[in-house]
Amino acid sequence: MDWSELVAWRRDLHRHAEPGWCEFRTSALVAARLEEWGYQVQTGAAIVAPEARMGVPSDAVLEREYRRALEWGSPEARLAPMRGGLTGVVGTLDSGRPGPTLGIRFDLDANDGLAEPDDPAHRPAREGFRSIHPSAQHSCGHDGHTAILLGVARALAGRRDWRGRLVLIFQPAEEGARGAQAMVAAGVVDGVDVLLAGHIGANAREVGQVIPGYQQFQASTKWDATILGRNAHAGIAPHLGHNALLAAATATLNLHAIARHGAGDTRVNVGTLQAGELRNSVPARAFLRLEVRGDSEETLGYMAERARQILESATAMHDCALQMERVGYTSTTPSDPDLVARIAEVARGVPGVTRVGGAPDLGAGDDAVLLMQRVQQRGGRAAYLGLGSPVGGGHHTTTFDFDEQVLTLAAELYLRLALAHLQPA
Amino acid sequence: MDWSELVAWRRDLHRHAEPGWCEFRTSALVAARLEEWGYQVQTGAAIVAPEARMGVPSDAVLEREYRRALEWGSPEARLAPMRGGLTGVVGTLDSGRPGPTLGIRFDLDANDGLAEPDDPAHRPAREGFRSIHPSAQHSCGHDGHTAILLGVARALAGRRDWRGRLVLIFQPAEEGARGAQAMVAAGVVDGVDVLLAGHIGANAREVGQVIPGYQQFQASTKWDATILGRNAHAGIAPHLGHNALLAAATATLNLHAIARHGAGDTRVNVGTLQAGELRNSVPARAFLRLEVRGDSEETLGYMAERARQILESATAMHDCALQMERVGYTSTTPSDPDLVARIAEVARGVPGVTRVGGAPDLGAGDDAVLLMQRVQQRGGRAAYLGLGSPVGGGHHTTTFDFDEQVLTLAAELYLRLALAHLQPA
Amino acid sequence: MDWSELVAWRRDLHRHAEPGWCEFRTSALVAARLEEWGYQVQTGAAIVAPEARMGVPSDAVLEREYRRALEWGSPEARLAPMRGGLTGVVGTLDSGRPGPTLGIRFDLDANDGLAEPDDPAHRPAREGFRSIHPSAQHSCGHDGHTAILLGVARALAGRRDWRGRLVLIFQPAEEGARGAQAMVAAGVVDGVDVLLAGHIGANAREVGQVIPGYQQFQASTKWDATILGRNAHAGIAPHLGHNALLAAATATLNLHAIARHGAGDTRVNVGTLQAGELRNSVPARAFLRLEVRGDSEETLGYMAERARQILESATAMHDCALQMERVGYTSTTPSDPDLVARIAEVARGVPGVTRVGGAPDLGAGDDAVLLMQRVQQRGGRAAYLGLGSPVGGGHHTTTFDFDEQVLTLAAELYLRLALAHLQPA
Amino acid sequence: MDWSELVAWRRDLHRHAEPGWCEFRTSALVAARLEEWGYQVQTGAAIVAPEARMGVPSDAVLEREYRRALEWGSPEARLAPMRGGLTGVVGTLDSGRPGPTLGIRFDLDANDGLAEPDDPAHRPAREGFRSIHPSAQHSCGHDGHTAILLGVARALAGRRDWRGRLVLIFQPAEEGARGAQAMVAAGVVDGVDVLLAGHIGANAREVGQVIPGYQQFQASTKWDATILGRNAHAGIAPHLGHNALLAAATATLNLHAIARHGAGDTRVNVGTLQAGELRNSVPARAFLRLEVRGDSEETLGYMAERARQILESATAMHDCALQMERVGYTSTTPSDPDLVARIAEVARGVPGVTRVGGAPDLGAGDDAVLLMQRVQQRGGRAAYLGLGSPVGGGHHTTTFDFDEQVLTLAAELYLRLALAHLQPA
Repeated sequence: MDWSELVAWRRDLHRHAEPGWCEFRTSALVAARLEEWGYQVQTGAAIVAPEARMGVPSDAVLEREYRRALEWGSPEARLAPMRGGLTGVVGTLDSGRPGPTLGIRFDLDANDGLAEPDDPAHRPAREGFRSIHPSAQHSCGHDGHTAILLGVARALAGRRDWRGRLVLIFQPAEEGARGAQAMVAAGVVDGVDVLLAGHIGANAREVGQVIPGYQQFQASTKWDATILGRNAHAGIAPHLGHNALLAAATATLNLHAIARHGAGDTRVNVGTLQAGELRNSVPARAFLRLEVRGDSEETLGYMAERARQILESATAMHDCALQMERVGYTSTTPSDPDLVARIAEVARGVPGVTRVGGAPDLGAGDDAVLLMQRVQQRGGRAAYLGLGSPVGGGHHTTTFDFDEQVLTLAAELYLRLALAHLQPA
Repeated sequence: MDWSELVAWRRDLHRHAEPGWCEFRTSALVAARLEEWGYQVQTGAAIVAPEARMGVPSDAVLEREYRRALEWGSPEARLAPMRGGLTGVVGTLDSGRPGPTLGIRFDLDANDGLAEPDDPAHRPAREGFRSIHPSAQHSCGHDGHTAILLGVARALAGRRDWRGRLVLIFQPAEEGARGAQAMVAAGVVDGVDVLLAGHIGANAREVGQVIPGYQQFQASTKWDATILGRNAHAGIAPHLGHNALLAAATATLNLHAIARHGAGDTRVNVGTLQAGELRNSVPARAFLRLEVRGDSEETLGYMAERARQILESATAMHDCALQMERVGYTSTTPSDPDLVARIAEVARGVPGVTRVGGAPDLGAGDDAVLLMQRVQQRGGRAAYLGLGSPVGGGHHTTTFDFDEQVLTLAAELYLRLALAHLQPA
Repeated sequence: MDWSELVAWRRDLHRHAEPGWCEFRTSALVAARLEEWGYQVQTGAAIVAPEARMGVPSDAVLEREYRRALEWGSPEARLAPMRGGLTGVVGTLDSGRPGPTLGIRFDLDANDGLAEPDDPAHRPAREGFRSIHPSAQHSCGHDGHTAILLGVARALAGRRDWRGRLVLIFQPAEEGARGAQAMVAAGVVDGVDVLLAGHIGANAREVGQVIPGYQQFQASTKWDATILGRNAHAGIAPHLGHNALLAAATATLNLHAIARHGAGDTRVNVGTLQAGELRNSVPARAFLRLEVRGDSEETLGYMAERARQILESATAMHDCALQMERVGYTSTTPSDPDLVARIAEVARGVPGVTRVGGAPDLGAGDDAVLLMQRVQQRGGRAAYLGLGSPVGGGHHTTTFDFDEQVLTLAAELYLRLALAHLQPA
Repeated sequence: MDWSELVAWRRDLHRHAEPGWCEFRTSALVAARLEEWGYQVQTGAAIVAPEARMGVPSDAVLEREYRRALEWGSPEARLAPMRGGLTGVVGTLDSGRPGPTLGIRFDLDANDGLAEPDDPAHRPAREGFRSIHPSAQHSCGHDGHTAILLGVARALAGRRDWRGRLVLIFQPAEEGARGAQAMVAAGVVDGVDVLLAGHIGANAREVGQVIPGYQQFQASTKWDATILGRNAHAGIAPHLGHNALLAAATATLNLHAIARHGAGDTRVNVGTLQAGELRNSVPARAFLRLEVRGDSEETLGYMAERARQILESATAMHDCALQMERVGYTSTTPSDPDLVARIAEVARGVPGVTRVGGAPDLGAGDDAVLLMQRVQQRGGRAAYLGLGSPVGGGHHTTTFDFDEQVLTLAAELYLRLALAHLQPA
C-alpha cells in the first residue's frame, strides 16, 4: 500500500485543530474524501442524535467555530448540516457481496483550551504545522487517528477482494466522553458485527508495540455543577448572604472524601472551581467541573450517587440552588477474547510490529466503549487496540507529540484486520 | 439583721452540691426552712411544668441522685413529689394587707461533671466544705444565691411592717438554661409585679460593688444532636458505611463558619463531639453538644435556624439520620430603667456598698431572663443585679471561689429592696 | 457662591470613570484646574510613595489605562509623571498670612470590574453620562466627591479673607483601601492641623442630613492569596498531585470559622476563588481574594493573624506553596469630638441642611482613616462626615445613583468649614 | 489422631477471653501444656521485645487484667514474667535429628471492648461458654486458632517419625497489628525455614474449603493521635481558645480526602473521635483513633506520609499541639508459590476437605505478615492459609461464631503439613 500521504493529512488536521462538537472543517474534509472514494456518507442528526449529545458548547461558541471553518475555506454546503454542533461523519461501503459488517471507529476532536506552544523544541512548531486555532490543540493524537482511518478508507475503496460491508465511524467529541452516546443513540453501530477502535500512545509507548485489545477502561461520569446563592456586603450584612463558595468548598472536601469502594477502583476530581465576584461580597455563584470514575458500572454508579448527594446537601446547607448537567459519560467493557486473539495473530504479521501485547488495563477512559458495548449487546464483538508510540510530554499536555511512524504501521494493521474479517476464508 | 447563719448555710449547700434537676436535698432543705418560717411552700409539678423542662438527665441518673439525697438524710416525704427531676421550690408569704407582689428569684444547682479539687490552695477544701458529690461542684455561686434568698426569707418572715405579697423562687437547673422555661410554663411569676434576680461575681469583681440592673444578656439555644449512620469494615467494605463522623466534622466546620450577623453579636460552639466505636470501622454514631448565642432574639433566631439547617444537611450528605434535642434556652431583656434607678438608690444606702454601677452587659446568659420577660410581658417590671465579688479561677472552673462577705451585703440589699417595694410610702 | 458647574463636572467624571491607580485622566483634569486657580500642584511619586501603594494593577493594565487616558485627550505632559500608577493630586494654597493648615481629602477612583447598565431606568444612562469605560463605573460617588472638592477649591481660590494654608487631597485607589497608605508615607498630611473627609450616602440616606463625624469604622486587611501545587492526571495518577483546590477549600472553611472575638465585632470573607485548569487534572493553582475586618486594631490584628495561620497551614497540608500579597488596609479612629461639635454648629447654618446627626458607626471602612490617624498622631484633629443622599441600588452595585443636590450642599458646607477654621475669629 | 479435646479447649479459652497484651491466663495455660508435652517453652521479654511492642494498654489496665488472670486461677509463677504486657508463648521441640526448622504461628488475643451477648440465639451463650470477661470477646476466632495449635503441638510431641525442629508461636496482640513486630524484634523466627500461619473464616466461608496461601494482604499503620489546644468560654472569650475539635474535624475531612493512589488500593479511617469537655467551652483536647491501609509498602507509605502531614497541618492551623503514637503496623507479602503448591497437594488429602483454592486476596490484614517477611528475607518460605468456616455476623462483631468442625480439619491439615516438611522424603 501507498501510505505516503498519511503524514501530510495528519499535519493539515493538526494545524486546523478543532475542539469537540466544533470539528466542522475536519468533518467536511473527511466527508469530501469519503465521497470521492465512493463511500456513502452521512453527517448531521442522522449520525449524532442531538438530544443525546453531552457537553455541547454554548451557541455562541458553536457559531464562532462554525464561522472559523468557513474562514478556513470549508464549503458552506458541507458545513450546513453540522451547524449547531452536529459534527462527525459515518462512511459506508458495501461490497455488494454478502458478508459481515465491519466497523472501525476513530475520533476527530482536538483538546479545548490549549494554545499550542511556539517553541522550536516542539516539533509541530519547528516543522510548521502548529495549530493555528488560538485555543485548540491536537494533544491526544486524534489528528493521527483521523489520518489512519482515512488511509484505511482509501485503501479499502480501491480493492474488490472482500465481501460484506464496511462502516467507518469518525466520532466527534471524544474528549470529555461526550460524543459516543449520541452516535449510539443514532444507531450508528446497530448493524455492526465486529467493531475495531484504538488509540495512539495509550499505555504502549514504543513504535512497533501493539496491544491487541484492552480489557479494562475507566468508566466515568462528568458534570458541570452551578451553585446559586445570594450576594451580601461582607462588612455590613454578611448574614444576608447565601454563600455559594462555602457550599462549593464543603462539597469539594466531601467529594474527595467519598469512601473508597471495597470492590474496585474509583476516582473523583473537582478539576475547576470558580466562585465569587468581589472581594467584599458574599459569593453568590460557584461553578465546578467535576468527574467520578470507576472500574465497573457498580463502582461508577456508587461514586455518581454519592457525588450527587454531596452536592445537593452542601447546596442545601447554605440555602443555595444547584444545577447539575451531565456533560460526559463512558463505561468499561472487555475486548472480546477471541477477537483479541485474531488481532494478535494479524498484528504479528505486520511489518514493523516488534511486540504484540502489554498491560491490558488502559488506565484511563474512552467513550468508544459505549459503541463497543452496543455492538456486544447486539451479539457482535469489539476490540480496542493500543498503537505504540512515544507521547512527548504526555496526553493532554501542550508538549504532547507522537512518532508519525505509527501512522503507517497502524493503517496497515487496520487494513489487514479489515481484510481478515471481510475476505472469504 | 442577724445574717450570721448565711455562711454556715452556704457551706452546707456547697458540701452537698447537686446538679440541675437533681437538687433533691437542696430543695427539701429550702422547703423545710420556708415552712418553718411560715411560708406557703410549693414543690413538684405545680412549679415546674414537666413537659417544659429541658435537658433533663436520664432516668437512671435522676434515680441515682434521688437515692443520694435519701442517703444524705433528706426525708422521703419531702423528696417524693420531686422524684424524676421535679426540683425547685416556691415560697409565698402574704402580708394580709393589700399591696404589690414582689418576686425574688435565685438558683439552686451546682455544676455537673466537675470534681472539686482536694487542694489546700482551694478554700472549700482547706476549710472543710468541699463537695462530697463525686461529680458536682458549686462553681458558679448558686450555693451563695440560695443562702442569700433563705436569709431574706427569714428576715421578712419576722416582720409585719409591709403589705402585699412575697414570692420567693428557688429555681432548679439554671446551668445550661434548662429550668426557667418550666417555671414560666407553670405560671410561677404570673402574679408578680416586680421581680428581682441577680448573680454573685458576674462582671462585678469586687465586694462592695453593686450593678443595679443589667441591660444585655446573651440569649442562647443549646442542643444535643445525635447523628446515626451505619458501620462497615474500613478495610473490606468502606463504601457500605454511612459515616456519622464525616457528617459531624462537616457540620462542626460549617457551624463555626456561620456568617457573623451584621446587626449584632453572635456565638456558636460545638463543645463536645464523641464519635465512632472502633479504629477499623466506619463510625455509625456521633454525639454533639452544641450551643448558639445572640444578643437579641433576632440574632439568636438566625443562628439557631442556620445551625439546624447545617446539621440537617450534613447528616443528609452522609445518608445518616439526625436527632436534635433542644436542651437549653434563654433570651435577653433589659432591666427596667426606673426599677434600676430605684435599686441604685437603695443600694447606695447599704453598709459596705462602695460602688453602684458598672458595665451593663452581663457578657453571658442567665435564664432568669425568661422569668423577667414573663413579668414584663404581663405589665410588671424586673431587674437583674450584679453582686460584686472576686471569683477565684472563674465561673465554671474547679478553682472558682467567692468572697463570703458578699452574702451579708446581698441579703441586706435584697431585704431593703423588698421593703422599699412593699412598705407603705 | 456659584455652584452651578458642579453637576457638569461630576457628569464628565462619571462618564470617564477610571479604576484605582488608573485615574490618569481624572488626575490630569484636577491638576489642570487647580493650577489654573493658583494652587501649587503635586502629582506622582511626591504624593504617593511607590513602595507603599497596595493592590496596584499589573503593568499591562496600567499601560492599557494610561493609553485610554491619552485617547480620551489628556495631555501627555500631565500624564507622564503618573505613568505606572502614580495617580492622585495634592493642591496647596497658601494665604500668605500666618494661620493653621486645613486639609480636605476626597477620593477619585471608580469601581473596577463593573459595566454600567445601558438601562433607561438608570439615570446616568437615561441622561447620557453613563460610563464609557467598559469595566469601570462610579458606583460609590467618588465622581461627586471630586466635583465637590473642585468646587471648594475654586471658591477658596477666589477669596482673600482667610489666613493659613489649604491642602486639598485628591486620593487615588480608595476602593480596596489601597491608596491612603501611600499618601501617608509620602507625608501628604504631615503639616495638617485639621483634616476633613467625608462620603456621600454612607449611612445618611436623605439629602439634607449631615453626620458631623463618624466615630467608628471597620478596620480591614485585604489579601490576594495564590496557592501553588502540582497537576496530575486525575484518573491515572491522582496521588502525584498537590491539590491546590483542596488546600483552598480547607482554608476557606476554616477562615470563615475563625472564632468570633469576645471584645468586638469582626468579619471575614473569601470573596472569590478561582482554582484548577481541567476537569480531569488535579488543580495546581488556586487564587483567592479575601479580607478580614475588625472594629479595632486588636480585633483586626487577631483576624489577620488567624487568617495567615490558616492559609499557611492549609497550604502545607496539601504540599503546596503560598503567596500572600496584602493588597489593602485601613484602620479605625474616632472623629475628634470638639471638631465634630464645631462641624455640627456650622452644618446647622447651611441652607438645605435639615438634620445634623445620625448613627456614628459608618458600618464599613474608608482608608481616609489612615490619613486621619496620621494627623491625630501628630497632634492635629480630624473628622469624617456623612453627606446624606439616597444611593439607588446601593454602593458598589451597578444601579447606584445619588441625588445631585448633595453636591451643592456639601460644597457649601466644606467651604464654610474651611472658612470657620481659617478665618480670624 | 484424637482431636476430641479441641472443642473443650477452645470453649475454655473463649470463656476466658483476654484482649491483646493481656493474654495472661491464655499464655500461662499454653505454656503449661507445652511444657507438659516436652516442649522447651519461652515467655516474656525473650520472645516479645518490650520496646518493639505497639498499642500496649495503660499500666492500670495491664495490672487489672493481670489480677483478673490471678483470680481466674493462673499460677503466679507462670504469670510473673509476663507482667506488664509481655504475653505470648514460643514452644520449641527438637527431634534430635538434623533437618529443617518448621514454624507454625497462630494468635491468642480476644477483641477488646466487646461484651459478648447473653442471647440464646448466640451459640456461646446458649451452650454456656460465653465470655466472662466484661469487655473482651473472642469474635475473630483466635480461641480456635490457639486450640488448633495446641492440638498440633500435642500430636507432634507424641511422634518420633520426623527430623529437624519445630517452633510453635503463640502470638499476642494480633488485633490492631500490635504484636508481631515485637516477636520479629526478639528473633522468634530467625532460624525458621518454613513458616505456616492461617485464619479461620477469612474469605473462605464453608467448612471444607482450604485456601492454600494468600497472595495479598492489606498493609496498615494505626495511630492514636491527641490534639491539645486551649479552653476558653465560648460566650465570653471564644477568641482565646485554641480549638482542638476544629483541628480534628479539619484533619478528619482531609484524611478521608487523601487522593486515591494510581498504582494500587488504599484505605483510610478515622474510627473514633472524642473531643471537648463542656458545651460552652472551646474544646481543648481531641483524641482520634485512625488507620491507613495500602496494598503495598509503596501505597501504605504514601497514605502514612499524607496522614501525618494532614494531622500536623490541621493542628498547626488551630495553634494546637499534636501527639501521634503508632499503635499498630503490618505489611503485605505473598505466600511462596512452591510452598502453596505443596500445601494444596497435602490439603487435598485431608478428610473433610472439599475445596482447595479461592480468592488469593485476604481483603484485610494480619501481622503474621511481618513474621512471614522476616522468614522470607532470611531465605525461608512462608504461607498463610485460609481455613473455611461460616462466621456468624462477621469478624469483630458480637455475633461472630465459627463452625467447630473446622478445628479438627485444620489441626489435621497442619499436622500433615508439618510432617510433609519434617519427614524424610
